[in-house]
Amino acid sequence: MTQYIGLLAGVLTTASLVPQVLKVYKTRLTRDVSLAWTGMLTVGIFFWLMYGLILRDIPLIFANVSGFIFSLAVLIGKMMYRKYEK
Amino acid sequence: MTQYIGLLAGVLTTASLVPQVLKVYKTRLTRDVSLAWTGMLTVGIFFWLMYGLILRDIPLIFANVSGFIFSLAVLIGKMMYRKYEK
Repeated sequence: MTQYIGLLAGVLTTASLVPQVLKVYKTRLTRDVSLAWTGMLTVGIFFWLMYGLILRDIPLIFANVSGFIFSLAVLIGKMMYRKYEK
Repeated sequence: MTQYIGLLAGVLTTASLVPQVLKVYKTRLTRDVSLAWTGMLTVGIFFWLMYGLILRDIPLIFANVSGFIFSLAVLIGKMMYRKYEK
């Protein structure tokens, strides 16, 4: 039961980044997206993944492998498109 | 040592939302912020908090109490300002 709550949490917080990734690459606009947010998030998720691996905690590992990919996608989009914005 | 990695991860992912919260309330613009992202994130963080409480895991609890507040702040900002945007 506990692990299902963790998995649900992981699916929600990880999948939440998908619409943001789609929005960035569809509109090619990231004006209101904070660079500091996406940068710190990407680094932070990397450390959550390390933590999950050490604890061998399936929900943490599951959530943070995919979260890292999505977060990096937002960060790359922000870096790419911000030079065309003011 | 393990717990410090978890705390570092929690501090980074949680604090990452602070610049996004500041950006939303300073600019009053959330055009490029996905409503689905902020909504799913807020609900997901709530479940991470439940998971942390069940496991009595300090980094999870610490990260997700503050994360929930910041995420809710972005969600409220998005709901408030999106009606003035197109």
